[in-house]
Parts: sequence; C-alpha cells; structure tokens
Amino acid sequence: MKTSNIIAGKEVKGSGKTFQSQNPSTLSANEGEFEIATIDNVNQAVNAAATAFKSYKITTGKKKAELLRTIASEIEAIGDPLIERAVKESGLPRGRFMGERGRTCGQLRMFAYLVEEGSWVEARIDAALPDRKPMPRVDIRNMLQPLGPVVIFGASNFPLAFSTAGGDTASALAAGCPVIVKAHPSHPGTNALVSEAVAKALEKCELPAGIFSTLYDNGYSIGTALVQHPNIAAVGFTGSEAGGKALMDIAAKREFPIPVYAEMGSTNPVFILPEKLESELDTLPKVIADSVNMGVGQFCTNPGLLIVIEGKNLSAFTKNLEQAFEELISFTMLNKGIHKNYINKREKALKSEGVTTINAKNQSSETLQAPPTIAKVSYAQFKKNPNLHEEVFGPFTMMVVCKDKSEMQSLAENQKGQLTSTILGTDNDLKDNVELIHIISDKVGRIVFNGVPTGVEVGHAMHHGGPFPASSNGRYTSVGTGAIKRFARPVAWQNCPETLLPPALKMDNPLGIWRLVNGETVKS
Amino acid sequence: MKTSNIIAGKEVKGSGKTFQSQNPSTLSANEGEFEIATIDNVNQAVNAAATAFKSYKITTGKKKAELLRTIASEIEAIGDPLIERAVKESGLPRGRFMGERGRTCGQLRMFAYLVEEGSWVEARIDAALPDRKPMPRVDIRNMLQPLGPVVIFGASNFPLAFSTAGGDTASALAAGCPVIVKAHPSHPGTNALVSEAVAKALEKCELPAGIFSTLYDNGYSIGTALVQHPNIAAVGFTGSEAGGKALMDIAAKREFPIPVYAEMGSTNPVFILPEKLESELDTLPKVIADSVNMGVGQFCTNPGLLIVIEGKNLSAFTKNLEQAFEELISFTMLNKGIHKNYINKREKALKSEGVTTINAKNQSSETLQAPPTIAKVSYAQFKKNPNLHEEVFGPFTMMVVCKDKSEMQSLAENQKGQLTSTILGTDNDLKDNVELIHIISDKVGRIVFNGVPTGVEVGHAMHHGGPFPASSNGRYTSVGTGAIKRFARPVAWQNCPETLLPPALKMDNPLGIWRLVNGETVKS
Repeated sequence: MKTSNIIAGKEVKGSGKTFQSQNPSTLSANEGEFEIATIDNVNQAVNAAATAFKSYKITTGKKKAELLRTIASEIEAIGDPLIERAVKESGLPRGRFMGERGRTCGQLRMFAYLVEEGSWVEARIDAALPDRKPMPRVDIRNMLQPLGPVVIFGASNFPLAFSTAGGDTASALAAGCPVIVKAHPSHPGTNALVSEAVAKALEKCELPAGIFSTLYDNGYSIGTALVQHPNIAAVGFTGSEAGGKALMDIAAKREFPIPVYAEMGSTNPVFILPEKLESELDTLPKVIADSVNMGVGQFCTNPGLLIVIEGKNLSAFTKNLEQAFEELISFTMLNKGIHKNYINKREKALKSEGVTTINAKNQSSETLQAPPTIAKVSYAQFKKNPNLHEEVFGPFTMMVVCKDKSEMQSLAENQKGQLTSTILGTDNDLKDNVELIHIISDKVGRIVFNGVPTGVEVGHAMHHGGPFPASSNGRYTSVGTGAIKRFARPVAWQNCPETLLPPALKMDNPLGIWRLVNGETVKS
Repeated sequence: MKTSNIIAGKEVKGSGKTFQSQNPSTLSANEGEFEIATIDNVNQAVNAAATAFKSYKITTGKKKAELLRTIASEIEAIGDPLIERAVKESGLPRGRFMGERGRTCGQLRMFAYLVEEGSWVEARIDAALPDRKPMPRVDIRNMLQPLGPVVIFGASNFPLAFSTAGGDTASALAAGCPVIVKAHPSHPGTNALVSEAVAKALEKCELPAGIFSTLYDNGYSIGTALVQHPNIAAVGFTGSEAGGKALMDIAAKREFPIPVYAEMGSTNPVFILPEKLESELDTLPKVIADSVNMGVGQFCTNPGLLIVIEGKNLSAFTKNLEQAFEELISFTMLNKGIHKNYINKREKALKSEGVTTINAKNQSSETLQAPPTIAKVSYAQFKKNPNLHEEVFGPFTMMVVCKDKSEMQSLAENQKGQLTSTILGTDNDLKDNVELIHIISDKVGRIVFNGVPTGVEVGHAMHHGGPFPASSNGRYTSVGTGAIKRFARPVAWQNCPETLLPPALKMDNPLGIWRLVNGETVKS
C-alpha cells in the first residue's frame, strides 16, 4: 500500500518514488510504502499554510485549545495500531510508547490549557498620558503574535513526543502557526497515523485544513526546500549537531534569515563529589548505569561524562560501576545509521590514547543492539583530545578522573554548551563547591542536583535547551510551556482604537488575563 | 591630545595609529586624536569582561540599579562639554542633545527600576510532587540569567541614546552582562566622555572595572575581532542593513554562533486612507513633512513610503505636500558617508522609471546638508522596481499611488519586514480596512494609528524591532524594558537545595517578585 503526502487534509500526487521503513529489531522492511514529496508539494504545502495562517493567527485561544485537545483524543483513538507501528519502526518496547503517547497527549493538553488561559501572550499596556511634560505619552500596547507557517522535523528518538504532533508541533499550533511536518524516514508509518489524527481534528473543529501538512523524503532535498521557502517563518528540529547545524546554515543564508530551533547533542556531564561518592558507593553506580542505558542511551539528556576526583574510594566505585554495567542488557537502537555511528564512535573513544575500558560488551554484527559501555580517562588526557568531548549517541559514558577540585572546575569551565549538567553531592560537598555550581550554570540549560539528567519533566519551569551546541538558541526551551515563545514575537499597537485591538489588549481585559499595565502586573 | 582605548578602567597602549572625528557642519577636524585598538586590546578587553562576569552575573538587582543610576548621574555631571562635543561630532543641534541626554539617563534609570524590582527574571517554580502517579515530580525552578560579555556598537544617529551608555548598554548591564563598546568613528570624543562616566560609576559603586571597556577603530577589523571572540556571548548594533547583516554573518560563522541584535533599515510605510486624506487635506501634509525631516531624516522610523489611493483629492493633497516640503529647511547630516549615500540614493530613486519629483531642493556640494525630498510613483512601477523598496536614509519619502484598495493590500502583503507601519484613517476608513490592518501587523514590529512613526516611546509596551530586514531578530526589542531579554536566557534548577538557589528562586520569595508558581502568577 502506498501512503501519500498529506497537504491540507488531502492526499496529493508526489514524485512516484517511494521508500519503506525498516524494523530495527528484525532488520526486515515494514509494510507500507511512502511516496517521496516533490518541490511542487513543498510549494503547495507552504501556500496552503500561508493561506490558513491568515485566519488561524487570529483564532481564539479557546478554539486553538479545542483543536489541541481534539488532536490528543484522535491520537488516543488510534489505539493499539499506533503503539504497534511505533514499536515496529523504532525497536523500542511497547511500554515506552504507552508512556510516550501519554506524554504527547499530555503536552497537547498542556498547551490547550495555556492558550485557553491566555496570559502567555505577555500583554503590556502603557496608557496614554496626554498631560505629560515635555511631551505627551501616546497609548502603546504590546502582545505576542504568531510568526507564520513553521516547519517541524520529526525526531528519530521520539516518534511520538518530538515528532508529528509532538512538543514542537503542539507549541507552534498553540501559538497560532500552521505546521508542515517533514516526517522522519525511520518512522513514516507512525507519522501517517498521527497525521491522519491531526487532519481529522482540524476537520472536526472546522478549522482550515492548511494548518497542517506532512511531507515524506528519505533524503535531504525536501527538508532543505522547506527551510528555504520564503513563506516559512521558523523551523523546529531535534536531532544531531550536524543535522541541526546544517539547518541553521541554510536558514542563515536565506534572503530573509529565520530562526531555527534545533535541539542537538549534549554530553550532559555528571559531577560526582567526593563525600557523595563515598556515602553512596554501592547505590550510585546502579542509578548511573540505568540512566545511561535508558532509552538505549538515545535520550538527548543521556549522561555521557562522569566527572570524579581521585581518592581512596574511586577504585571501589569504579568496580561497582563495572558490575552495574555488566548487569545491563543490550537493546536495539533506532536505525542502522544510529547503530553504526554508535559502534564506530564507541570504538574510536575506547581506542583513544589514555582511555581504559571499564566495561564493554561485544556487539553482535547481526543485530542493531547497542552494548552499554563505560570507560575512563584522566582529565589530562581528556583535555588534550577534543574527540572525547563529543557525544557518543547511545548507552556510553566516559569517566573523567580529575586530580583535584581545581581540575574539575577547569573541566566545567572549558566544556561546551550542554542541555544539562548534574551535580551529585552531599550538603557538605555542595557547600564546598559553590564556585563549581556557578561555573556550571553558565554552561547549561538545566542544572540537576542529586538526580539523573534523563527524564525531562514537561511543565512551566522546565528548560530544555542550552548554549550552542546543545541547542541552536539557548534562550528557548523545546519542552514545557515556555516552548510556545519560539513561535511568536511581540507586536506593538500604538494609538489603536479600542474596537480594533486584539481582545488581549482591550482596556477592559475581556480575556481576564495577567497583563503588565503601566508597569504593574494585574489581572483586572 | 591622544585618547586611548579604555580597558577595565585603564588607558591601554594601542596601535599607535590614530584618527580624528570631523565636524559635519564645518567639515573641519574636531580636536583630539583617538588611538586605534589592536587585536591584543580586543583580547584584553574580553578577558577582563569574562573575569568580571563571574561576580557581576550574581550581583544583586539593587547593586546593578545603583550602578545604572550612578552612570546616569555621572553623564549628567559632565554637563555642557558633552552636549558641545556631541554637537561638533554630529552636526545635530544642541536642543536635540538636551533631549537625547534626558532620554539616555531616563533609560538607565528605567532599567535600574526594572532590576531593582526584580520580576524581569521571569522566575518559575514547579514544586515537587513526591506522590504523583505514575512518577513523582521533582522540584524544578527556572529564571533568566545573563548571557556573558557582550559587544555593543555605537550608532551614528544616536551618539548618546544608542551608543556608549545607550539602550543596548543599559539593558546589557541591567541583565548582568559586562559590555565592550566599539565606539562609532563619527563620535569618538562623545564616546570618550561617556566612557569615562561609566568607568567612574563602576569605581564609585566598587564594582569590577572589567564590566566596561571601550575600543576605537575607524575600520572594521576591531569590530570583527570582537564579534568573533569565543568569550563574547551576544552583540548589539543599530545601523544599516549592510552593517547589521555583515555582523550576523560573522556571528553565524563562529564555531559557536551567538545572537546579533541588529536594528537595521526600514521604510516605515504610512498608509493614508481616503476619508482621512480628504478630511485632513490641509493639515496632514505638514505633519508628514515634519516627520520626514525630523532628525534630518536620520531616524530608523523615518516614514520613507506614503501609500495612497487614486481619487479626487489626491492632486490637492499632493500639492499641499509639495508646499509643505518646500517650506522645510535643509539640515546637516551626520557624516560624509551618510550624506554621500543620501545624495546618491535620492538621485537614483528620482531618476527611476515612472518616478516624478514632487519637491526636491538642490543640494550644495560644499556642505553635508540634506535637501528634504518627496517624489511619487505608481504602484505598478513601484512593484516592478525593487530598488524603490530600499530605504533612502535621510529626509526622503516616496508617495506610492495605488489604483484601489486591493493594490494597497497587495503592497502591504509584499513589503519586507518593517520596524513600523502607520495607518492614517478615520473610524470609517479603519472599519473598511480590517484586513489591511491584519496584513500589516504581520510585517511590522509596531503598528501606528493616526500618528507618525518617528518618536519611539521608551516604556514597557514599546516594541522596536521588526521582521528581517528591519531587525535581525524581530522577537526582540531594542527600546523599552523588554530590551533586557536580549541578554539573558532561562536556566532550570532541578532539585536544588534551598540554600544554594538564587534568591529569585527561593521558596519564601525574599525579593518579593512576581513568579509563576505551579502555573499561578503570584507575588507571595
């Protein structure tokens, strides 16, 4: 069966060429063929989105909330076939997708609540002061408005939560931006099911079908053409540093550059302080090993570096880590490319000068299983070899042994931007390392105390995005309610008649939202 | 007398080469020589800033407010010599600088108030929910933190308000970022006086001198080296599209790209609707002419396009515009380069196919005076000639005559990003043009009703920044309290012990700021 590109709710004629996805667990092709889009399809989808934007941008928060909730219900209504397809296209277990579906629908409903409540537009009113001297002040009001049609790239590692109707799409739709999803070639079937749910929801809500389209391609040309299209206003991406940087460069070279929100790689260093190491010698190693192997190490927040200080307990700790890794099970990775990269990068790291393997299982060449791996290296060696600073995407972690606190600080200071860093320390440890904490907070989007970096809570206070290269733009989060800000910009309305103002800016506050009125935060 | 580069409060040895500024009114050199900086100076200044950042980033809002207010007082304490020097280096009148100084100090005090009050950090707390099912929620808190050392480029057209201690510097210092100012070569003496005031203020407040440095160069190499320096976190710029785009490209090509906040050109179209045109046939032309000639047409918000619809009153309106322009006086432009560009671009525009001059005085080749100029062209011709869409920086405006409402809408739809657009219309006009208003609001940072775009109010609700090419990043403003957001990013603190949290995130809210706690906006 051939699945076509969906533009504004309709199947359209594509290139005629198709591709199939592969089941990473069996290495056989999944059923269904997916038609590769054409440049014409790109133009059709963007034009439909641009037309839909004209009405969608002024659609009420209540109506947008209805859409987001309906999408969630439609995704749930797919039922088991969605879970099954996602399993077949990712090699990840069923339980993972029960959770990921919950998260995906939870995100959609969270954004529904956010736009229904309405204060997210950050309305500001500076009322006229006609008698001000030497010059009167004119009435100025300001609120966030949607950017325009956006392109979202499906992410291999989250076929539901960061793909077709994942966090990027949910936040863009919430902001009032039509979305064109470039499906990830590893899970086109999952994309097709979710896309159908979105199209159905638009129809049920009687909103323009052009608010959502999805295009297939197993190469780069469709994605590139989408990012280059003059009517595209922003791009959302979760994936590798190379992929994200390529999109950033394409966007920067446009006649009118646009923002690319790329959430890319990160080594997510875990700083283990001495007293903590001693006091949890037996328990910490297992916690760390489980975090490294979670999601087959395919989380952006995977702890890829463990920073420790030489000391009397280190060899016992290392031994316990070895044991904890020995007990881990190898799981199947998302696709051939990711598996090949893992095996190659792991090997390169293990063979680097000064690197000692603590525990590494062999991998079978017949499967895409990823052997969990832990190695160690001295800070002196680590410092000399920039390759060791790169992420090894998969269940891999490198213990970096510092001679003392000052080496640990120096590592923190010289690290690249990170999505997260974690500090494991007792109260005494933390008191002794306040400077380290400050250094780390400059390099990361999220600083975790006595926990693991994996597991990204979806809420108001989450920040998922760090200084480059962790993400293209560390001022924005791709997880949590803050993600909506990526797809909006402030517009000031000066001396606008009350009747013409957007509801959020009308003097009597018909939406009942929080606003900054003459510098005061008020809801009245 | 030679003026040296000031790095962390100290004069430093530069290249030995110097330059002088020119008095645009007399075309003679102003007294004083300014030493061109070296790449060593760039490194010294950035290193000093990076060191100062370590303590400045955690300096309290109260202390930062003290600094900003002391800078304002020190600028005022310079007294008349500052006004005189600015006049000599810009050709602008004294009265203008009395006003611009007031605005500059007002901005500094506005940001002082903002950071003293403290809610700008957008603190968010999602408290732990240890009993949540299926997974407990961990405590996550989030606030804006400063980016790091930033480079600010002095702007030729605002020697005080957008230069050394102007809005960019004030907002960066308010955010907690050390600043290195690349002085504008047209007003190095003004820069030297203000830089001294900033250095004195830092000393009085007992803050690290490295928080502020200033470097001189009459070419591009020092600015380029500053933007390329790995320890620079962001760039602020106000100037031409070519200049801003060059900085954007340099920043995008860095190993670690950084944000450039460039406020660039704009034609600020003014849409004049028929009933309004008829009802204010006699008064509007003078208002428009004065706005075009304000600041010698050297404001970013200068109305460079007047969009009208053919009709019975247009010839009378045009005649009144001709008269209003005839009565304007030619004033001196900021420097030779700007004057030369104005004369050339004006001539090119006037000689373009289909363009008719309405009123244009001749310019004397002996002075830098800018003859106010108004021309007209049909929309059909305008549409064909992209050159006519470019800003002519100076007291120039082009009337574009549309056949009907739909041509006016089409112009609005096809315009590039603008800082502002203005709609002049009666209540009936506006009621008849709701679609036009929506189209315009997508293209601009600020939409003005029945006013002129010149005059940018400094407040909470102002937005000064539009879609590219009006600015590099239309999601940020360079005027008003919102400007501080350019220099900060959110950082999430997960499960952090109370004692180690920044004050803004402590549970008992010691700063008494507005926060989002478990999704509720509260001050308790």
